[in-house]
Amino acid sequence: MFQNVVIVGPGLIGGSLGLAMKENGLAERIVGVGHRTSSLDRARAMGAIDEGTLDLVAAVGEADLVVLAASVQLICEHASTAVGRMKDGAILTDVGSVKQAICDGVRDALDARSEGTVRFVGAHPLAGSEQRGIQAARGDLYQDALCVLTPTGETDGDARTRVRQLWEAVGCRVVEYAPEVHDRMLAQISHLPHVVAACLVNTASDDAIELAAGGFMDTTRVASGDAALWRDICLLNRKALAESLRDFGEVFHRFAQAVENGDAKAVEDELARAKTRRDDRMPSKG
Amino acid sequence: MFQNVVIVGPGLIGGSLGLAMKENGLAERIVGVGHRTSSLDRARAMGAIDEGTLDLVAAVGEADLVVLAASVQLICEHASTAVGRMKDGAILTDVGSVKQAICDGVRDALDARSEGTVRFVGAHPLAGSEQRGIQAARGDLYQDALCVLTPTGETDGDARTRVRQLWEAVGCRVVEYAPEVHDRMLAQISHLPHVVAACLVNTASDDAIELAAGGFMDTTRVASGDAALWRDICLLNRKALAESLRDFGEVFHRFAQAVENGDAKAVEDELARAKTRRDDRMPSKG
Repeated sequence: MFQNVVIVGPGLIGGSLGLAMKENGLAERIVGVGHRTSSLDRARAMGAIDEGTLDLVAAVGEADLVVLAASVQLICEHASTAVGRMKDGAILTDVGSVKQAICDGVRDALDARSEGTVRFVGAHPLAGSEQRGIQAARGDLYQDALCVLTPTGETDGDARTRVRQLWEAVGCRVVEYAPEVHDRMLAQISHLPHVVAACLVNTASDDAIELAAGGFMDTTRVASGDAALWRDICLLNRKALAESLRDFGEVFHRFAQAVENGDAKAVEDELARAKTRRDDRMPSKG
Repeated sequence: MFQNVVIVGPGLIGGSLGLAMKENGLAERIVGVGHRTSSLDRARAMGAIDEGTLDLVAAVGEADLVVLAASVQLICEHASTAVGRMKDGAILTDVGSVKQAICDGVRDALDARSEGTVRFVGAHPLAGSEQRGIQAARGDLYQDALCVLTPTGETDGDARTRVRQLWEAVGCRVVEYAPEVHDRMLAQISHLPHVVAACLVNTASDDAIELAAGGFMDTTRVASGDAALWRDICLLNRKALAESLRDFGEVFHRFAQAVENGDAKAVEDELARAKTRRDDRMPSKG
């Protein structure tokens, strides 16, 4: 499917993609670009990449496909560098959980490119966990996962098809949304819940946390994610997140008023609506 | 440990206690009081009770120990009935997740009792899940769980010791708090998170919920709990919950402002504080 592939940041997400591509014979050669030799050695030993390098600029020059798989702030930086150094017609994609900021950055970098073009297709596989790093990578991470592509009016049709085929070949169900639609939805189901989980932990007293049983552990699990990484996600998706925060604030205020007023019907209505919507939409996921 | 035990509501919580008491030889005879013969038959077949009856009034008269294990609203109702019918000196306890309302109800019922007394000790084992009913009961449910006792100045010392020994004998670590302290802590780690989980589901669009990955599933899992049951918990613990809702509202507002203002330091501080507090307090629980 691809000859020379570069994966920038072969950690959990990028390394798992490398493993899956090798296992499925989708790449002739994969070069991993990282910032620590030890991680690159490990990625190579695991079979996620064929070769490792610390030199992003040199690595992307010969690639047919570059996958940006570092954290989201770094993806923005790597995108600008890669766009300026990749060969004409090569495909650039990424795995970032915020899409508008990355698409905007790529567009700016493309405008600044003096000749030829790079074909960019934004992507976001919804897989992974609080775990990070190449040691957590596995070839079946994308099996039955969802991958969102975020093509725009400027996206090359052939590149879009090939990136879709790549994610399908590693096991994903692929859907497509405009970058801003992706960002709004991810704010609702990922970035807002992360903020809320952090706020729940920060509201509870130390004594109360000591008592915490399973429900609290589940509800706040995402709050154990890396703080700097999530700071970047919050800020890079600031507009859509702010909108979700306002929406949540209204729903929450209405619920709090119902409790304050002892309004049994209103309290039950909110709870029943949430239960029905959650159970209906996610029957098989528990 | 006890001769004649009555468990009112032998479902997941009460049935598991019955199983654990039988397995550990803590009760000579356990009578289950329910409102459906089929459930009582099942509880008996599983060995959680020796006998089942629909008649609460008749059942509690001979008991040395009555455990109220129905849903929290019913516990309040059963408490009044039981206090009036139990024999002098018998011990009454419960498993309700709201304590002040139950303790107040028992005090009123004790005041109304014409002669003799019943020795009440409030309890709340922090175990169980979204599952309900006798079919989910198991003898090891309380192994390594926490059980909160909520004695007051009026609680009989011997009864307090015996109820503590009971929960320890089925595997619990027992801690003691005043009812209002219990309610405040449970509001923070259980009732507020439930409200927030429901609000997260009700904030997300249908399309976004379709995309939902693991993080959202975990954060909102409790929102699939029974709506009527949680309505009662919210209202019976209305005072403490309203306080937690206000506290959360302030923490949330501060975070939302930081996002709105693009204040990277403030956003990271909130996230880092939550991560540190969660990781520090719950190292082994993931």
